[in-house]
Amino acid sequence: MIILSRSEIEAVVDLGSALGTIEAAYIAASEGRATMPPVGYLAFPERDGDCHIKYGHIAGDPSFVVKIASGFYGNPSIGLPTSNGVMLVFSASTGVLEAILLDEGFLTDLRTGLGGAIATRALCRPDARRVAIVGTGIQARWQIRCLRQAMKQTPLAFSIWGRSENKARETASALASEGIDLEVAPDLERLCRGVDIIITTTPSREPLIHDAWIRPGTHITAIGADAPGKQELDTSLVIRADRRIGDRLEQSLDHGEFSTVFKSGLMARKDCAELGAVLCGKAAGRTRPDDITIADLTGIAVQDIAITNSILDAYRLSSVSHPRKPR
Amino acid sequence: MIILSRSEIEAVVDLGSALGTIEAAYIAASEGRATMPPVGYLAFPERDGDCHIKYGHIAGDPSFVVKIASGFYGNPSIGLPTSNGVMLVFSASTGVLEAILLDEGFLTDLRTGLGGAIATRALCRPDARRVAIVGTGIQARWQIRCLRQAMKQTPLAFSIWGRSENKARETASALASEGIDLEVAPDLERLCRGVDIIITTTPSREPLIHDAWIRPGTHITAIGADAPGKQELDTSLVIRADRRIGDRLEQSLDHGEFSTVFKSGLMARKDCAELGAVLCGKAAGRTRPDDITIADLTGIAVQDIAITNSILDAYRLSSVSHPRKPR
Repeated sequence: MIILSRSEIEAVVDLGSALGTIEAAYIAASEGRATMPPVGYLAFPERDGDCHIKYGHIAGDPSFVVKIASGFYGNPSIGLPTSNGVMLVFSASTGVLEAILLDEGFLTDLRTGLGGAIATRALCRPDARRVAIVGTGIQARWQIRCLRQAMKQTPLAFSIWGRSENKARETASALASEGIDLEVAPDLERLCRGVDIIITTTPSREPLIHDAWIRPGTHITAIGADAPGKQELDTSLVIRADRRIGDRLEQSLDHGEFSTVFKSGLMARKDCAELGAVLCGKAAGRTRPDDITIADLTGIAVQDIAITNSILDAYRLSSVSHPRKPR
Repeated sequence: MIILSRSEIEAVVDLGSALGTIEAAYIAASEGRATMPPVGYLAFPERDGDCHIKYGHIAGDPSFVVKIASGFYGNPSIGLPTSNGVMLVFSASTGVLEAILLDEGFLTDLRTGLGGAIATRALCRPDARRVAIVGTGIQARWQIRCLRQAMKQTPLAFSIWGRSENKARETASALASEGIDLEVAPDLERLCRGVDIIITTTPSREPLIHDAWIRPGTHITAIGADAPGKQELDTSLVIRADRRIGDRLEQSLDHGEFSTVFKSGLMARKDCAELGAVLCGKAAGRTRPDDITIADLTGIAVQDIAITNSILDAYRLSSVSHPRKPR
């Protein structure tokens, strides 16, 4: 059995091949080739914590994956990260446990970043250059890293806005050390009015992005709303959008960015499409330069399966070239 | 973090203390102090396999537990065990992964044996001596080992019956090597007519134990029916029983031994009680020597939590007296 620590995982990440694996997984999900049972959930209200269990199997894959991920929001006050997690890989032929990836939530961050990049690349205008990043957490960084990888032929210009300008500066400075330039934007409205792509990464429960700020042709990827009560985009902006794409519509309409509009009856399921269907050409993505497009990503188990397989493949390749001692 | 292999787990098992921990867990479940979300499930019909994810938290416990257990029924034909599994222990204060028990299904077998022993001890006549074990698989062995531990003041006499008399002999011979005497019974009817306790451990989908064979005062612990379609006891025997006790009634009535009678409307939920309620005196168990009592055990997450905590406690104790190198 393979047991990998977070640092061993980080050492073998290959963003380019992971992008391809996750794109294929979205397509498998939309084509009905993936089994993704309802997400398991445990709440720890006294500790402001929760645990999600996402698991599934893509037909034909030699393995299946179970991810257990927790978020305990008081952890930073005692010097611990909010997120934790582990990925378990089992043989789909024998049920034998084959690998444990002690990623401590790293792979969830990474696959979320990759998912955002895939959606943004698929839906933005071909001539999009200016990107607004809303929020200053770990996802802000991953969205930037992954989108740069996904659109590496395109000279993108990133600006970041956060409620705390200090945190926005910290993020810009951290990315500068990776060689990524990032402008700190003091005003969210002005920022939104001047960009081609907006990526929202906040846990906001009140709409942050207002309809009036969004010009035709803008693409928005909304990452933050992953649970009931969270909402980053104005309801009227969701209604006004020309194309609404979710990673998994039953989640987006239940507790994602589209849920408020859907539950108020102002939009039907048929007014949305799934990302995998867009990626394989079975559903329309952007149809005109002036379309406003919104991708709502709530996170799905096939992303976890894909990123895990991608890491294991990379690890096995690296083991062949640099043999390690067995554990 | 602690990672224990199956052999390390086996080395620290203490049946006596585990019995107490699991008994307390049944009581916690019946008193509503346990969170046990619906069991997660993945099917692999092409491989005759499945995977169950059981998880939960007992209020006040410092940790929560996620169990992933698979059964691939063609494994023996390629020299692998049918069952596999792993237990994961997380801090309920921070979500941090604290321990991985690579038990390969051993702890599920063990906690199932302990659960059966607790139910049998609680519900049999005080003067019960003769025990029939129906079935020759791994659970047959664990039911015997655990019941001997639970009733060690009582001189129990065990007989075993299996569809294959050869397998029954193999089981008897294996237990003989542990110092346990076991008679092989050639005829199931005659066996049932002559004992005080019957423990059924088969995956039968047709009733094996017939009403007419069961004399007043008999206690039956039924372990086998853990999924829709499985049934070991005659429907009329379930109706005739004076007391019907389930580990978790919503499971027993949905897919356990009581489900056929319940779904046909011949018995109501109020005609059954939960094991934890019997154990803490809130519900009646056996009320008269001549009562026929049936315990239907489908397996619940608090057993997994309790056995895991019991193993970790024993491991920490053994580490204090025999320090090991950290891993």
